[in-house]
Amino acid sequence: MAEFEGGNGSKPKRPSRKLTWASVAQPALEKARKSSQTQILVTIFFVIFVTCALFNAFPNRHTTMPESESDDNSGFDMTVNFASASQPCSDAAAIATADSSSSAIKVYMYDLPIRFTYGVIAARSASRGGGRPENLTSLSYPGHQHMGEWFLFLDMNRPESDRVGSPVTRVMDPEEAELFYVPFFSSLSQLVSTSQQGDGSEAAYSDEETQEALVEWLEGQKYWQMNGGRDHVFTAADPKSLLHVMDKVKNSVLLVVGFGRLRGDQGSLVKDVVVPYPHRLRTYEGDLGLQNRPTLLFFMGARFRKEEGRIRDVLFQVLENERDAIIKHGVQSTENRREASNGMHTSKFCLNPVGDTSTSCRLFDSIVSLCVPVIVSDTIEVPFEDTIDYRKIAIFVESAAAVKPGYLMSLLRAIPPERIVEYQREMLKVRRYFQYGVSNGAVDEIWRQVTKKLPLIKLMSNRDKRLVIKESDCSCVCANPTTNRTP
Amino acid sequence: MAEFEGGNGSKPKRPSRKLTWASVAQPALEKARKSSQTQILVTIFFVIFVTCALFNAFPNRHTTMPESESDDNSGFDMTVNFASASQPCSDAAAIATADSSSSAIKVYMYDLPIRFTYGVIAARSASRGGGRPENLTSLSYPGHQHMGEWFLFLDMNRPESDRVGSPVTRVMDPEEAELFYVPFFSSLSQLVSTSQQGDGSEAAYSDEETQEALVEWLEGQKYWQMNGGRDHVFTAADPKSLLHVMDKVKNSVLLVVGFGRLRGDQGSLVKDVVVPYPHRLRTYEGDLGLQNRPTLLFFMGARFRKEEGRIRDVLFQVLENERDAIIKHGVQSTENRREASNGMHTSKFCLNPVGDTSTSCRLFDSIVSLCVPVIVSDTIEVPFEDTIDYRKIAIFVESAAAVKPGYLMSLLRAIPPERIVEYQREMLKVRRYFQYGVSNGAVDEIWRQVTKKLPLIKLMSNRDKRLVIKESDCSCVCANPTTNRTP
Repeated sequence: MAEFEGGNGSKPKRPSRKLTWASVAQPALEKARKSSQTQILVTIFFVIFVTCALFNAFPNRHTTMPESESDDNSGFDMTVNFASASQPCSDAAAIATADSSSSAIKVYMYDLPIRFTYGVIAARSASRGGGRPENLTSLSYPGHQHMGEWFLFLDMNRPESDRVGSPVTRVMDPEEAELFYVPFFSSLSQLVSTSQQGDGSEAAYSDEETQEALVEWLEGQKYWQMNGGRDHVFTAADPKSLLHVMDKVKNSVLLVVGFGRLRGDQGSLVKDVVVPYPHRLRTYEGDLGLQNRPTLLFFMGARFRKEEGRIRDVLFQVLENERDAIIKHGVQSTENRREASNGMHTSKFCLNPVGDTSTSCRLFDSIVSLCVPVIVSDTIEVPFEDTIDYRKIAIFVESAAAVKPGYLMSLLRAIPPERIVEYQREMLKVRRYFQYGVSNGAVDEIWRQVTKKLPLIKLMSNRDKRLVIKESDCSCVCANPTTNRTP
Repeated sequence: MAEFEGGNGSKPKRPSRKLTWASVAQPALEKARKSSQTQILVTIFFVIFVTCALFNAFPNRHTTMPESESDDNSGFDMTVNFASASQPCSDAAAIATADSSSSAIKVYMYDLPIRFTYGVIAARSASRGGGRPENLTSLSYPGHQHMGEWFLFLDMNRPESDRVGSPVTRVMDPEEAELFYVPFFSSLSQLVSTSQQGDGSEAAYSDEETQEALVEWLEGQKYWQMNGGRDHVFTAADPKSLLHVMDKVKNSVLLVVGFGRLRGDQGSLVKDVVVPYPHRLRTYEGDLGLQNRPTLLFFMGARFRKEEGRIRDVLFQVLENERDAIIKHGVQSTENRREASNGMHTSKFCLNPVGDTSTSCRLFDSIVSLCVPVIVSDTIEVPFEDTIDYRKIAIFVESAAAVKPGYLMSLLRAIPPERIVEYQREMLKVRRYFQYGVSNGAVDEIWRQVTKKLPLIKLMSNRDKRLVIKESDCSCVCANPTTNRTP
């Protein structure tokens, strides 16, 4: 498949590092034929040089060495492919810490019946009046905010030689695997179902039926049965995805954007991985600083939301008449994305209020725009929080305070320019974690996070199989109540 | 301190592996002075040999290589020291997987006021009529079943050069550390307090006061404040240890033998590490097999226990008259330990019933005796369960079934000899995990388990510092109810 091969033509060639005994010993033996003290010394120093080369070769076997620096520019394309696989990240130090392939965790990706992967794309295409092509795998996954499942699928389908630096290795024999990836496009499936509701068309596709069929198929698999699914990984990025069968897959590692619709025994920070939304807006490529950012606070998005999201309307009332704030209602469209992108690139702060759920792709759009997120969402969970200290890149404001007239703007006006630039600098450092489809980006970090769950997966898998009789059998880690925390 | 140096005289000397450029190049240059083709070749091969040596030396830097095989015989000595640090484990493959020192996690051990370490030993000594020596550090820690805290302290005090293969490195600068070890002898402290109760003597030592003083001291420490103690590690092996201040140290990683007395928000499989009791009986050094094990089922210990432990009396009634079972009442004493040791070494199965708590050092005595544990304890937690599948080394029997007359003996009689030998073989494989004071034994594995908590520690530490408003803020992993599980 062309997508997995890449082809932007700019892949830098790496010099071969292979040193064989033949290549080491042959020239040395040549030289040895002539006998003079100088030559002996030359020979000795040559061999010492080779020793040095070998000495240095070993650490390098285990690390990815960037040959050149280049800017990341993939953010805005929706049909992104892993052409950018060799694209170096701007944070060279981070690459150096990439896991060595020798210690990579082995993952088996199920060869699912096609209805669960490309079949979902076909259903989406059909729901929009498209025909069903002969070769389903020629279909392109449509761009939307939960398309992380597509990037994970693409990554796993790349040849291993292109996956250098990944913390996981794909194996074709499930017997070797420590983790099992189920590449069902659960978010797209939920999206297709939703898009059909109320449009009068025949219900040709049912997400619920597809979920049930998937679980039925899995329950017939030896490796699913073996550990009750604990070592299985699903993407469940759309908050409604997989919900119909959640109790059957709740043991597994779920890749989620939050836990809004999951019960505590279905999803948690301990068992699952919070993943970023793929950002929808263009990455800001300009310099740090405030010279091109006249707007203090920017927001563009839906004004009216349900439940906690009703705070948005209140925030609109409080903020829309502030002179240095741009607060606009807008829905998803290519034109609006362009406008939002310009807005975020020319503002110091970007408002990130709670919506239907506690987070949205706006947070990641803000970060790649180097527009300091002002998060007004009291229960938000954020990706990779063991690695990223979000206080360095965002400002958290309690909802109750944010809705007080004047509070938010006074708070932001009081932040000195150099502090804002410091936020920008920190965002730049962690930006790669939020970029899908680049090397050492979101996909690698998601897998790194999953591998960190392995000790708990193994413990629970072993423990599940022996006798334990407890009325309630949950193991938890608890947070202290928020007290006296300032933004 | 003599204890850390070792001194049983049997420490095998390791050949030095240090290769310096001087030692490599000097002899080569000597030889180079004479010029003949033979000598050139000799020189070349010498340097190639050195290259090979270096080639091989690097992996070795990171692993512990056993120089010889010797039997472990430390189990019965109570004043064990790390003389046996270089004692090889029988499972060479396991040693090969020991973490490399380059990736070792940095641990800072607090230099606690002496009242929390040797001061507790002195209090113990005083409570038994002993005098207070001028140099407290000359005191020996007394042998008891929760003395794991002593082994951890000894290990941390060894020079780093002796700690090869440990997953953690001790650092003297807390700024460098990822984890902080608080070496308070919490179990001994609890033991001293208990031993004074009701003996009419003046209450010269108070465990509660000592716990409070420790927390007061910690609360004045910068690194304790920094992450609310989440990156701190305490031993709390005695189920009553640290209980008085548990709510103040509950964020920390606790090294426990179970969670009997802890609330769900104080201790859990997710946050803490279940550690083995140091075994009190002699390690069985004979061959696998049943020829010297005429007894089918053995138990020696207290017949009467509180709460769930009352099952012991019922088990005595059901089992004590069985012809091939030895079920005896006995309390801890040197003589009884000798008898119990002989009993376990000559039996196929060892009964491990619940006592005051769900586990006891008997389980580890059984394992080092290669006497298959028959666990009758419905809520037991066992150490290192991510690494060890206990169904391979033990038999779990539900309490309700075990008390049925005839049930247990029929079950055990039906197990074929080759299956028992298989259990023995598996016990031999994992025995090292239950041996304190040996290289790549319990202490290293405890630290390995602690390091696996780091991602969660970091996540929770970062998350604690930002705004999260939730009524109940616990993240859990839950087990499925036990159904249809056979022993």
